[in-house]
Amino acid sequence: MVTRLALLGAGRIGKVHAKAIASDARAKLVAVVDAFPEAAQAIANESGCEISTIDAVLANPDIDAVIICTPTNTHADLIERFARAGKAIFCEKPIDLDVARAAACIEVVKETGAKIMLGFNRRFDPHFRAVRKAIDDGQIGDVEMVTIVSRDPGAPPPEYIKVSGGIFRDMTIHDFDIARFLLGEEIVSVFATGSVLVDPRIGELGDYDSASIILTTASGRQASISNSRRATYGYDQRIEVHGSLGSVAAENQRPISIEVATKDGYTRPPLHDFFMTRYTEAYAAEIKAFIDSVENDVAPSPSAHDGLIALKLADAALKSAREKVLVQIV
Amino acid sequence: MVTRLALLGAGRIGKVHAKAIASDARAKLVAVVDAFPEAAQAIANESGCEISTIDAVLANPDIDAVIICTPTNTHADLIERFARAGKAIFCEKPIDLDVARAAACIEVVKETGAKIMLGFNRRFDPHFRAVRKAIDDGQIGDVEMVTIVSRDPGAPPPEYIKVSGGIFRDMTIHDFDIARFLLGEEIVSVFATGSVLVDPRIGELGDYDSASIILTTASGRQASISNSRRATYGYDQRIEVHGSLGSVAAENQRPISIEVATKDGYTRPPLHDFFMTRYTEAYAAEIKAFIDSVENDVAPSPSAHDGLIALKLADAALKSAREKVLVQIV
Amino acid sequence: MVTRLALLGAGRIGKVHAKAIASDARAKLVAVVDAFPEAAQAIANESGCEISTIDAVLANPDIDAVIICTPTNTHADLIERFARAGKAIFCEKPIDLDVARAAACIEVVKETGAKIMLGFNRRFDPHFRAVRKAIDDGQIGDVEMVTIVSRDPGAPPPEYIKVSGGIFRDMTIHDFDIARFLLGEEIVSVFATGSVLVDPRIGELGDYDSASIILTTASGRQASISNSRRATYGYDQRIEVHGSLGSVAAENQRPISIEVATKDGYTRPPLHDFFMTRYTEAYAAEIKAFIDSVENDVAPSPSAHDGLIALKLADAALKSAREKVLVQIV
Amino acid sequence: MVTRLALLGAGRIGKVHAKAIASDARAKLVAVVDAFPEAAQAIANESGCEISTIDAVLANPDIDAVIICTPTNTHADLIERFARAGKAIFCEKPIDLDVARAAACIEVVKETGAKIMLGFNRRFDPHFRAVRKAIDDGQIGDVEMVTIVSRDPGAPPPEYIKVSGGIFRDMTIHDFDIARFLLGEEIVSVFATGSVLVDPRIGELGDYDSASIILTTASGRQASISNSRRATYGYDQRIEVHGSLGSVAAENQRPISIEVATKDGYTRPPLHDFFMTRYTEAYAAEIKAFIDSVENDVAPSPSAHDGLIALKLADAALKSAREKVLVQIV
Repeated sequence: MVTRLALLGAGRIGKVHAKAIASDARAKLVAVVDAFPEAAQAIANESGCEISTIDAVLANPDIDAVIICTPTNTHADLIERFARAGKAIFCEKPIDLDVARAAACIEVVKETGAKIMLGFNRRFDPHFRAVRKAIDDGQIGDVEMVTIVSRDPGAPPPEYIKVSGGIFRDMTIHDFDIARFLLGEEIVSVFATGSVLVDPRIGELGDYDSASIILTTASGRQASISNSRRATYGYDQRIEVHGSLGSVAAENQRPISIEVATKDGYTRPPLHDFFMTRYTEAYAAEIKAFIDSVENDVAPSPSAHDGLIALKLADAALKSAREKVLVQIV
Repeated sequence: MVTRLALLGAGRIGKVHAKAIASDARAKLVAVVDAFPEAAQAIANESGCEISTIDAVLANPDIDAVIICTPTNTHADLIERFARAGKAIFCEKPIDLDVARAAACIEVVKETGAKIMLGFNRRFDPHFRAVRKAIDDGQIGDVEMVTIVSRDPGAPPPEYIKVSGGIFRDMTIHDFDIARFLLGEEIVSVFATGSVLVDPRIGELGDYDSASIILTTASGRQASISNSRRATYGYDQRIEVHGSLGSVAAENQRPISIEVATKDGYTRPPLHDFFMTRYTEAYAAEIKAFIDSVENDVAPSPSAHDGLIALKLADAALKSAREKVLVQIV
Repeated sequence: MVTRLALLGAGRIGKVHAKAIASDARAKLVAVVDAFPEAAQAIANESGCEISTIDAVLANPDIDAVIICTPTNTHADLIERFARAGKAIFCEKPIDLDVARAAACIEVVKETGAKIMLGFNRRFDPHFRAVRKAIDDGQIGDVEMVTIVSRDPGAPPPEYIKVSGGIFRDMTIHDFDIARFLLGEEIVSVFATGSVLVDPRIGELGDYDSASIILTTASGRQASISNSRRATYGYDQRIEVHGSLGSVAAENQRPISIEVATKDGYTRPPLHDFFMTRYTEAYAAEIKAFIDSVENDVAPSPSAHDGLIALKLADAALKSAREKVLVQIV
Repeated sequence: MVTRLALLGAGRIGKVHAKAIASDARAKLVAVVDAFPEAAQAIANESGCEISTIDAVLANPDIDAVIICTPTNTHADLIERFARAGKAIFCEKPIDLDVARAAACIEVVKETGAKIMLGFNRRFDPHFRAVRKAIDDGQIGDVEMVTIVSRDPGAPPPEYIKVSGGIFRDMTIHDFDIARFLLGEEIVSVFATGSVLVDPRIGELGDYDSASIILTTASGRQASISNSRRATYGYDQRIEVHGSLGSVAAENQRPISIEVATKDGYTRPPLHDFFMTRYTEAYAAEIKAFIDSVENDVAPSPSAHDGLIALKLADAALKSAREKVLVQIV
């Protein structure tokens, strides 16, 4: 069987997914939809698929699945429509910036029994997966403490900040998901603190650009997350898990791994400067995993439920940072 | 001038300080005091100093300074007596486990004008000093976030836990001091969470063995501390400071830095398994700094005030962890 | 313009090149030739090109260039035929295992003025290129000494050894080329020593499996190469260049860069276990460079001449190892 | 028993040895001899020993052992005199720059049955010892290839070069000894090449400042040594041993192990800039090993014979570099 897919949204990330589909012999991109004809055309040219519309894709019985890369505020509606149309769905995170809306959407998904996967790409990073595998293999014993450092190369412009949902829903949400992926237990409390140290315009919009978060689970496992919207040396993405028998850590990835030694010391080049080059393999692997789940008719992971929980944690972090209280997750 | 010193307390750390004094041509150990004659004798033999008593040292005008390494509950009294006797004082941390008692002691010190230095040895670790120097040199711009991972090789026995004052006053206190050393601003709030994941007996004594702490300063700088009483791979001591222009990090120290590569991968030996081998250079450097301050008649650092603040932060952390609230430092 | 290519040889490396062509919008694979119909068919299926023959490709005026990945003993003949037919040629190294035959072939190429590039893929490894760039940028001053460690994960079977031309022509030849790429001067002398330490069957075939080589240039620059047919920990490929102002080194590449710390120490996974995963980017970049040279009508590099020199160095090394003498290159 | 020692030569290295003796409770420095009264006095002051003469030390039955740190050209005579006087002898390498003189001296030592240890301090470096231990423990299987990179921070002045015996006898001799220490078999052939790339004055004196050497053993094990008299980034000292089951490497030692990350990349400080800080622990450990051998009446290692073999290898390397031939060791 070949899975026939439609791509909704032909922007930056849509192009990445189109390429991933092209490189998987079990899948075929048959349609692309975008409000901008040029964007759709570019992908149609490269992949040989047709340009289509949402309605046409919904009505097309030959399309098995859709990849949703449209703006965030369209996600929940599209998920509901395609779930009702019986298509398998891959959707970029988040389902919605509003927890209630996301929860309602998930209800629809459940009723329809639709297959849905959320685009938490980092779970598919080969290094992070290797960390998880080391845990699953028992190499570090019982997980006790997770430490995540996650810093962007530079702060996005105010226009982006405005629609981003804020640092916790936009940036930390990935770390919440990875923390859950590694802790092995659900998170029961969130404490967060936020500051504006990078760009005062971010503060003027009511957001933070620097944040520290502590998460705990019922048995007392702890996770620490350190976020900044700026890291001059590149896209800083480190995770470490400490357990009863040891620790496992994923180091930063380096596009060029040379070292120059001079009288001033030993110097290595900066890290990746962009999330799409840092997570190239992860993006390809997540689409492959989605195709796997369609081909083998199994539930994909991460699920819509995973997306909802991460969003709740983000809301809790925001409340914690604003009110300076520990927030329990119920 | 040669600084003439008396050593009060001839235990493990006393021996380390005696050796540091012996290697400094500007100083001479002239007396040692200990409740156990054998301990005092051992140091007397090695250094050629005489065995003495507290009273005799107090009364001896030829003694310029004392090194206090006696049990914690004697520190405040000894500090007060020697301050009044006009001796310069080096005292192992803490002044006292009780903030009020420590504060009262500091009042006495102030009245007498005595010179006093607290034994926060880590400030003298050459690698941590290099981190501080990189900050002072402007290499990372304005400090924004400090990340400290500090894990002991193994949990101490219950007997020790009982008199330790708890993880925050016994273990995290070093990290509080280093955070202050690096943040460049006073800490205004503390959030801490503690768990018992390593040894249930520690929990039975009302203490924690795993803790995560977030500190903030008035301008919004943040510090994260991650503590565990157990690290199978050795004494794990890492600090990282993130700033507007970059980051600076001190890696773990390794007693043996070889790497073996086999079909199972690349393996390096574990870290130091003991704080005294990890901080050998730091212990020697702090005594040298104390002698410097006596010789040059300048105020030593870290001061008794630094000790008091670290203790207050520890108390705040304990309150935060127990009551699950953010604690403001006043 | 779109460069139209034919692929001669649809084996392992042919597939890699077909993929590189497919990902370059300026190029199109229009024909594939292979003695095994299934191999050719597989590539035809994936790329949409036609299955053809050598003669048909030679006669086809619409084909601009050929990629030669056939067995080594066919290279020289094919190069001559396609040079005479006016096609641009990319050929896997070596031109021939016999220096005289390779030299004769190059004469034909020169007469025809054909464009030819030799497949020394390592020159296109991004890390090795960064080493070269650091040199070109003057970061290490004048080059003085090059050190290359190059070890295969495991020894090939005797059948391969028999037709390989021996370790110097098969394996070290890459290192000779990289040494030339980095030394900045021609090599004037070769000393080599070879041993059989890995597999006695290799010795029975008159070959070596472990070799050390010293190269010198006219001004006294030196290069050391260390080769082994076995490295249990993976494909070990390191280069370092020492100069008057410093050094620059390319570290090994790691498919997974995590580290597990336990009571037994810190362990990282092994290296790549296969040259095609280690040099994935290099293979793609060399085909891109070939297409560049065709598109822009410039001479490609590395040239057939580079291939001939590397082969002469291999012959010199063999003579040196067998006769235990320093061999001058004339 | 306490070993009573005399120090002959109170220069730079003599001071280091005096300190090592002072820190060993089993030993006591009782006399120091030096042509410069001030040098002897400085050590006498610090250690409380008496200033003496060669003849007085020879005649003193209370002195068990001597540490010879006088100029190289006095070593052989002093060894012979103290061997005849029945003293245990530690002597800085080399016995003599002339192989025949060194061999004659060793004959005298043998006749007298004197205990003698040569100061190849690197064998006592804890990291190099750990490499050797990994080999002895079978971690890398059979040793196949040893790779040594050994570079000085800067070239010595011409005055030193003149009396040094040349790069092979002065600098590479340490690497020859370490190669023997790790190869596990005697070396049977030497090929060396030398260049003048660092300082033309070194060439004018008939010496080299850059050298590459290949050593082989009877069974075909190989060692490569790369030497330079200049490394802008510090004292570069790396060894790696490759075996049938894997490899083991000792990395460079760093006085300060921090890393600063900025937009220009990740930078670590330079290495040690001086052999005495790099090998501090090794110097202390070799004296301790000498005292061990005296206390326990066992033969010390490395022996005078080890010194003689290293010298022969140096002579062979010089012949090889000058005559451009492989030199067999007989």
